[in-house]
Amino acid sequence: MSTRTPEEQLAEHRTEVEGLREQVCDLHAELPRWNLVTWTSGNVSARVPGTDLMVIKPSGVSYDDLRPEDIVVCDLHGRRVRGRHNPSSDTEAHAYVYRERADVGGVVHTHSPYATAWAARGEAIPCAVTAMADEFGGDVPVGPFALIGGDDIGRGVVATLRDHRSPAVLMRGHGVFTIGGDARAAVKAAVMCEDVARTVHFARQGGPVQRLPQEHIDALHDRYQNVYGQ
Amino acid sequence: MSTRTPEEQLAEHRTEVEGLREQVCDLHAELPRWNLVTWTSGNVSARVPGTDLMVIKPSGVSYDDLRPEDIVVCDLHGRRVRGRHNPSSDTEAHAYVYRERADVGGVVHTHSPYATAWAARGEAIPCAVTAMADEFGGDVPVGPFALIGGDDIGRGVVATLRDHRSPAVLMRGHGVFTIGGDARAAVKAAVMCEDVARTVHFARQGGPVQRLPQEHIDALHDRYQNVYGQ
Amino acid sequence: MSTRTPEEQLAEHRTEVEGLREQVCDLHAELPRWNLVTWTSGNVSARVPGTDLMVIKPSGVSYDDLRPEDIVVCDLHGRRVRGRHNPSSDTEAHAYVYRERADVGGVVHTHSPYATAWAARGEAIPCAVTAMADEFGGDVPVGPFALIGGDDIGRGVVATLRDHRSPAVLMRGHGVFTIGGDARAAVKAAVMCEDVARTVHFARQGGPVQRLPQEHIDALHDRYQNVYGQ
Amino acid sequence: MSTRTPEEQLAEHRTEVEGLREQVCDLHAELPRWNLVTWTSGNVSARVPGTDLMVIKPSGVSYDDLRPEDIVVCDLHGRRVRGRHNPSSDTEAHAYVYRERADVGGVVHTHSPYATAWAARGEAIPCAVTAMADEFGGDVPVGPFALIGGDDIGRGVVATLRDHRSPAVLMRGHGVFTIGGDARAAVKAAVMCEDVARTVHFARQGGPVQRLPQEHIDALHDRYQNVYGQ
Repeated sequence: MSTRTPEEQLAEHRTEVEGLREQVCDLHAELPRWNLVTWTSGNVSARVPGTDLMVIKPSGVSYDDLRPEDIVVCDLHGRRVRGRHNPSSDTEAHAYVYRERADVGGVVHTHSPYATAWAARGEAIPCAVTAMADEFGGDVPVGPFALIGGDDIGRGVVATLRDHRSPAVLMRGHGVFTIGGDARAAVKAAVMCEDVARTVHFARQGGPVQRLPQEHIDALHDRYQNVYGQ
Repeated sequence: MSTRTPEEQLAEHRTEVEGLREQVCDLHAELPRWNLVTWTSGNVSARVPGTDLMVIKPSGVSYDDLRPEDIVVCDLHGRRVRGRHNPSSDTEAHAYVYRERADVGGVVHTHSPYATAWAARGEAIPCAVTAMADEFGGDVPVGPFALIGGDDIGRGVVATLRDHRSPAVLMRGHGVFTIGGDARAAVKAAVMCEDVARTVHFARQGGPVQRLPQEHIDALHDRYQNVYGQ
Repeated sequence: MSTRTPEEQLAEHRTEVEGLREQVCDLHAELPRWNLVTWTSGNVSARVPGTDLMVIKPSGVSYDDLRPEDIVVCDLHGRRVRGRHNPSSDTEAHAYVYRERADVGGVVHTHSPYATAWAARGEAIPCAVTAMADEFGGDVPVGPFALIGGDDIGRGVVATLRDHRSPAVLMRGHGVFTIGGDARAAVKAAVMCEDVARTVHFARQGGPVQRLPQEHIDALHDRYQNVYGQ
Repeated sequence: MSTRTPEEQLAEHRTEVEGLREQVCDLHAELPRWNLVTWTSGNVSARVPGTDLMVIKPSGVSYDDLRPEDIVVCDLHGRRVRGRHNPSSDTEAHAYVYRERADVGGVVHTHSPYATAWAARGEAIPCAVTAMADEFGGDVPVGPFALIGGDDIGRGVVATLRDHRSPAVLMRGHGVFTIGGDARAAVKAAVMCEDVARTVHFARQGGPVQRLPQEHIDALHDRYQNVYGQ
């Protein structure tokens, strides 16, 4: 943690902060596009690298109306440092993740319908297709039920993900949290989580579904993390 | 109720009425956007504050073609006061709600598919996820089967909602009615009703789903109504 | 039937024909919009009033590329009278309906997924919601399996619809045919057929669904056909 | 196979290659349009006729950002001959198909959700509707589970399709591969495969579904392949 005040950090990193506000604003358009959100129900945040600051969606603002200057700058306890709006009511959960996981640069929260259906039953999504092995390296796990406000949700997210390769966790009776090295990676994890939640849901409607053998999951995950992309 | 005639009230509140016609026209675009309607099957209305007037969608006009001047002005018995078109065939139900519930400023009716599926079975949507506790404060209840025409539907809506925190009711064998302090809030309730109807539908397809404990529902609902947003 | 040749009828009704080609071209955009079709798999036709002519989609042309001049003019045996393209491979079925049902001015055929699922099982959609009573006046019935080519499909459509109020029939193992007083009414019936097929499908996934009582269906259908709209 | 080097073949066929890059780039827009892909998860390739070259999507590039010059030119062992980007991680599977099937000019791979659900169970889609007989001439078969990298996937695709009329195969625990005389035909097969996977999925949710009689499948397939379209 920096010894400077949040305001001093903001002044020093003004350009990076404005760039991240724009990027995080734009990434919110991915949420309705991939059917992850209804009305204003999901949010994206990003850590400001090298600081104790994060940027996050304002509470209750629609995705259509969101502009970069609406994105709220907070410290890593969720206190607003800059911005006209109140930050997302999920800010404390995002902030807790950033405090506890130095490797995390982006967090996404949604109630995407297929993934939230698994969360409502408190059932992990079994790793039944290769795309799931690629992205999640195994099942998408279930975290505890936790009430909003304070650190309970963040604590549940961090504790659950510690024991899994998965960048996504299904918070019981609630919805999805995903993490990534940056905000874009966390958004991708949220998009893919809904995709596999849906595919495995459909698969199970037609009969039993087998988990892939562990050695195949390991091989696929290793390859995807190291070879895929540019 | 005002002692003035509807026409006098309209003359006095011309500016507010025109503003509401525009707002209600625009809000209809949310219905296809969130997959709540097919062809011309849903409608939004708003009370004109301080009068015995309401504005509502014309009957059988497509959402694409709808312009502010098409929105019909009615009195609170559903009689047309201004507008070229016949008002929605659901106007009497909307009007009844406004007469009986002085706190309601907006009403929405849809046959949104997941919610209507619960209505077809006559089954309340159990409060199984936090988003549902937030918005509905419990189950989305079922109202009676009622035929269109006269006050039966409105009476069923009002009687059912009286006993619930939910701004949405599933009218048996028919569809959804939602209420709000204004038309936008009623539209949001209709959008969220379909969202939770869908999520809990998916959840139940995979196995049993537990209702959240009542104390959690209470805590979530209280927080959401008082803290969320700007 | 007219005693003039199709070419003479076309010459006499040139303006009406061009207007219908434009209207039918535009109506095809409703098919992808309401998720009734995949690739090029559905088609709309219209009778040219006062003639033995019809206009219909060309075979295998994508909805994006369709222009009014691509719409094919045929006689009521499905023979092309005007147009560069071959008419839809379903033309004989449309033509049969126009020959047998003087009251029909528009026909639509789709493989819309929920309705076709009922057709695959050979199961009528039970009239379980008021929207279905309104538009269909009862169940959406199932017609026989019939191979494409010749009059078999058209015969099955006409024979099945003769005994029902429904403007839609589920052809077993195939898809949906709808009829209307004009092409727009037939398109509306196709859109509403998929809508109710979906809603009742969802409803039944959660448990048993009751058909509405016959006297309610009768009352709703009567009112909708006579009161709704402008 | 040509005796010229890939670079020589590229120089000779420059105009065709650039045309195919543009066509294949454009065809990728059909994948999100028909809900076949999530994020960057599907790819289209085309053989360059008369050469040992193919063009294919770059790895991990989003569909929005894809431009013709991003499409990678490879030889038929999947080695890049031209292009800034790495080719799709599925390139070896595409290349194997082109080496073994001289009649194939286009290959598509997706994880489209309904088809992948059948693949996750390892269950063929039964030919239960006429549209499926038309396009696939029978069931959509299941191929073996195979790990990415090397020829295993390609070998599974080719071995499975050898025994079927279907241009689509469900690779167990993975997703869909389709082939066609050109890239557009392979894309159409991928679109139709998801369509029938969805329709038969819905049909089976409501009860047992019968396969069409073989003689009807044969008659429909023959007609569709020889009569349909322009």
